[in-house]
Amino acid sequence: MSKKPQQVRANFLDKVEKINTEFLTLTYGSLMVRLIKDYEKPEEINDQLEKMGYNIGIRLIDDYLAKSCIDPPRTFEEAIAIISNNAIPYYLGCRAKYELIKSDNLSESNQQYEYKILFSENPLNDFVELPEKFKGLWYSNMICGVIRGAMEAINIKVECKYYKDTLKGHDNNEIRIKLIEIIEEKLQEEEQ
Amino acid sequence: MSKKPQQVRANFLDKVEKINTEFLTLTYGSLMVRLIKDYEKPEEINDQLEKMGYNIGIRLIDDYLAKSCIDPPRTFEEAIAIISNNAIPYYLGCRAKYELIKSDNLSESNQQYEYKILFSENPLNDFVELPEKFKGLWYSNMICGVIRGAMEAINIKVECKYYKDTLKGHDNNEIRIKLIEIIEEKLQEEEQ
Repeated sequence: MSKKPQQVRANFLDKVEKINTEFLTLTYGSLMVRLIKDYEKPEEINDQLEKMGYNIGIRLIDDYLAKSCIDPPRTFEEAIAIISNNAIPYYLGCRAKYELIKSDNLSESNQQYEYKILFSENPLNDFVELPEKFKGLWYSNMICGVIRGAMEAINIKVECKYYKDTLKGHDNNEIRIKLIEIIEEKLQEEEQ
Repeated sequence: MSKKPQQVRANFLDKVEKINTEFLTLTYGSLMVRLIKDYEKPEEINDQLEKMGYNIGIRLIDDYLAKSCIDPPRTFEEAIAIISNNAIPYYLGCRAKYELIKSDNLSESNQQYEYKILFSENPLNDFVELPEKFKGLWYSNMICGVIRGAMEAINIKVECKYYKDTLKGHDNNEIRIKLIEIIEEKLQEEEQ
């Protein structure tokens, strides 16, 4: 309790180890079994997972900011960096990296507003094989919802979508995050 | 990979820290919301949670024995000790202790066969309040299923029930585990 914020933060980052993800993995699997019973189409399950994730994200961000003793990120890029470098290792126990999406169709300034997050391991995928009839399912789509919810809670409105999943035979796991809007007023209110 | 088992085990136990349980907590909460939608009675939800836990337990035990590099426990008490001192801290990030249940109605020998596991914190309970109409719900009943499944996988048949839950205003979380049967033949086969 008496630790200085900087010290607490250092300890927090030291503790990022891939532990106890298996119970999470299997609990997530139980949730998936339940969703598959309740919904016919993979697309419906994707939507449900995203919504559940959104509700988790708006709560998780408070916990994260409190435990890590960091200020809420001020820019889209700062938020992406925290998700990739800190939050994903902390909550999922795996390493991730982020990259700006460069496209010939986008002007230089627009390119600042879409990033990909790449993570070769995803503990939620452990022990999972996707049957053929679920090829439309983004198994870990909850993560997209969590990111959208967490960012919206700090006034950064984004679109977040799965692009690649090793469960589908892709070479990597890739989530794309596009900036929709930064809600400036609320940011200013909180600064006071 | 070249570490000796003893060394690996020491590192494994060092790493037991309460991290990244919040995502687990909230994922478990999402599962609960879904079960509440699907089942009317708290008792039905308790049963579902126990069954899901059982299926998790029979898989989790393999993971646990592999990662901790320990031999499967040979006795009921040894198994209880591992669950309480190692597996609960590892998967739930909280401390637990176990006690033999002594009752005047039981003979000395029978008393060896029922234990209580006590844990004052339960991360699955975080952020949760039980509404009045769910007073029959054992919110974390999945844990009982996990214990039953894990023990059955190593040929120890038990009955496992929630007795106290801080969500219900009890002073502690208490799970009771009663030995039903040790399946001797299978144990002997595996020893060879």
